[in-house]
Amino acid sequence: MTMNFCSHCGNPVALRTPDNDSRQRHVCLSCSTVHYQNPNIIAGCLATYGDKVLLCRRGIEPQKGLWTLPAGFLENGETTEQGAARESWEEARAQVDIDHLYGVFNVPHISQVYMIYRAQLTTPTVAAGEESLAAQLFSEDEIPWDQLAFSVVETMLKRIFEDRKNDAYPLVTEVHCQALPNSKPQNTIDDELLDLPPLAASAM
Amino acid sequence: MTMNFCSHCGNPVALRTPDNDSRQRHVCLSCSTVHYQNPNIIAGCLATYGDKVLLCRRGIEPQKGLWTLPAGFLENGETTEQGAARESWEEARAQVDIDHLYGVFNVPHISQVYMIYRAQLTTPTVAAGEESLAAQLFSEDEIPWDQLAFSVVETMLKRIFEDRKNDAYPLVTEVHCQALPNSKPQNTIDDELLDLPPLAASAM
Repeated sequence: MTMNFCSHCGNPVALRTPDNDSRQRHVCLSCSTVHYQNPNIIAGCLATYGDKVLLCRRGIEPQKGLWTLPAGFLENGETTEQGAARESWEEARAQVDIDHLYGVFNVPHISQVYMIYRAQLTTPTVAAGEESLAAQLFSEDEIPWDQLAFSVVETMLKRIFEDRKNDAYPLVTEVHCQALPNSKPQNTIDDELLDLPPLAASAM
Repeated sequence: MTMNFCSHCGNPVALRTPDNDSRQRHVCLSCSTVHYQNPNIIAGCLATYGDKVLLCRRGIEPQKGLWTLPAGFLENGETTEQGAARESWEEARAQVDIDHLYGVFNVPHISQVYMIYRAQLTTPTVAAGEESLAAQLFSEDEIPWDQLAFSVVETMLKRIFEDRKNDAYPLVTEVHCQALPNSKPQNTIDDELLDLPPLAASAM
């Protein structure tokens, strides 16, 4: 969504580099308010019940019809753990106990940071929330690997089944610059980002 | 900063709960654009050189004159690691190699998530950046404990000197709801946040 007007006074904004700043911002030509735009946090869960993991089938774009972890935009006033638990309820009607932070994924081309928590379902009862077509528990051999919505999901699923063998779940930190091959663009890239140098796509 | 007008079309906004949403948002009464407001990430470094840690003396409010880790708002298009390294340069003219994510602090009453990286200075040369009064390397017995700007800084400093004894640096995750006793408010609390239930202030 293009920013054309000052949300404070309603007059036009223009891209300017404020004093003591190195980046262009939307600055109000009337009241001089600087409107910063910053990355968003996506909070979610890799929730398990016994040897099964919880996935949701997306009911909305992007990636409608494909499977994902319950996750969504962190809201003002909540913690990342609260956001991860809330999304598990909203998308899969799943009640979870949060264990620990398990994955941090930077997705800089769309200015998102995923924070995925390992969690335990308190009961195996799940159901599709409003933005999901289905919610289901999968054992390792049942995972729909060719129908996953995002590369973050694939990475976390591979990791938990591998980590389970060692009963150790170290934090995964990666930069993801591309979605899965079958994915469509998740968002519009801001013009200002197109001149950035290429970023490492591998794990750090 | 109060949101009064639609940044897309310039007409007035009002607080409304959109369909399929559970929260009030600023919604344009003319073009129906929903303006979401979400938490920000503060990326920073606990950077060391030998047995010393890098602190900056803040040159701007809040907490002007007190000592802090180099850290600041993550920018669109960069990773949290890039943001942490950039802030180290901007605030302390420090060149760092990022080691690993060391602290994640939720500060929900101001809708911020701190992501602090352990890092190594490549040289001991540091200097005050534009928003700092000073940048300095401190050994443990030199830390100005009664002049630290934020509780996150105190926690991370205590942790690194403790962790150094064991040569193990596990991820610290905490919810911080209050600043240090000598601190002033960091930000204005949105009215909508005042009705939230109390949050645990201890480590999770």
